Amino acid sequence: MTLLNDSWDYSVYSADCPTRQVLDHVAGKWTGLVIGRLEGGTMRFSELRRQVGGISQKMLTQTLRELERDGLVERTVFAQVPPRVEYELTPLGRSLAAAVSVIREWTEGNFDDVLAARERYDGRAD
Amino acid sequence: MTLLNDSWDYSVYSADCPTRQVLDHVAGKWTGLVIGRLEGGTMRFSELRRQVGGISQKMLTQTLRELERDGLVERTVFAQVPPRVEYELTPLGRSLAAAVSVIREWTEGNFDDVLAARERYDGRAD
Repeated sequence: MTLLNDSWDYSVYSADCPTRQVLDHVAGKWTGLVIGRLEGGTMRFSELRRQVGGISQKMLTQTLRELERDGLVERTVFAQVPPRVEYELTPLGRSLAAAVSVIREWTEGNFDDVLAARERYDGRAD
Repeated sequence: MTLLNDSWDYSVYSADCPTRQVLDHVAGKWTGLVIGRLEGGTMRFSELRRQVGGISQKMLTQTLRELERDGLVERTVFAQVPPRVEYELTPLGRSLAAAVSVIREWTEGNFDDVLAARERYDGRAD
């Protein structure tokens, strides 16, 4: 990695490149699923939790906080009793959503081939 | 999730869908980096290790074994002394490589915006 004009020449392949910690987030399974659900529109916490199967309350809270901190999700609190809190993608979040949907679709579309490969591998004599 | 014509109606959003365990792999940081390097062509272990900064020998071994098991990477052993082992993407692996490169490029291309969002978030009074 080299320093160019006061800015990094970013490369996720370099262990010391700051982009690495962002890749860690955005490449995460839960991030991809939460962002995918928010692509459909604004949602409340309880609705998101219902629609992302298997996510714990703690993991969803942490995922949403990281997404908000990274500027990918906007959290809006409505002053009513009880307070209503809604989450929606920012324009930056929508651009990531488009990228992660490709991974999601690849996984669903190629699962049968992966499964067949695993059966071949596990059944090998050597 | 419903059973249709003896095959699953796959959805990564369902906690009990078998695609989840594949998503876990393919969405991983190291998988994306190793696959990205192999997109450039056949490589040996030592070369891969040098080109994926920060990956340990153990993690690279494990990542390559999972990729081979999932049918994404082919491992070829050449009978010579010492034996030469090469890794290359299968056609299935190349299709995943195209998908993960979008995430890698998003991360490098939007890192400055993510960093600015973090600074705003961390500097908030509330």
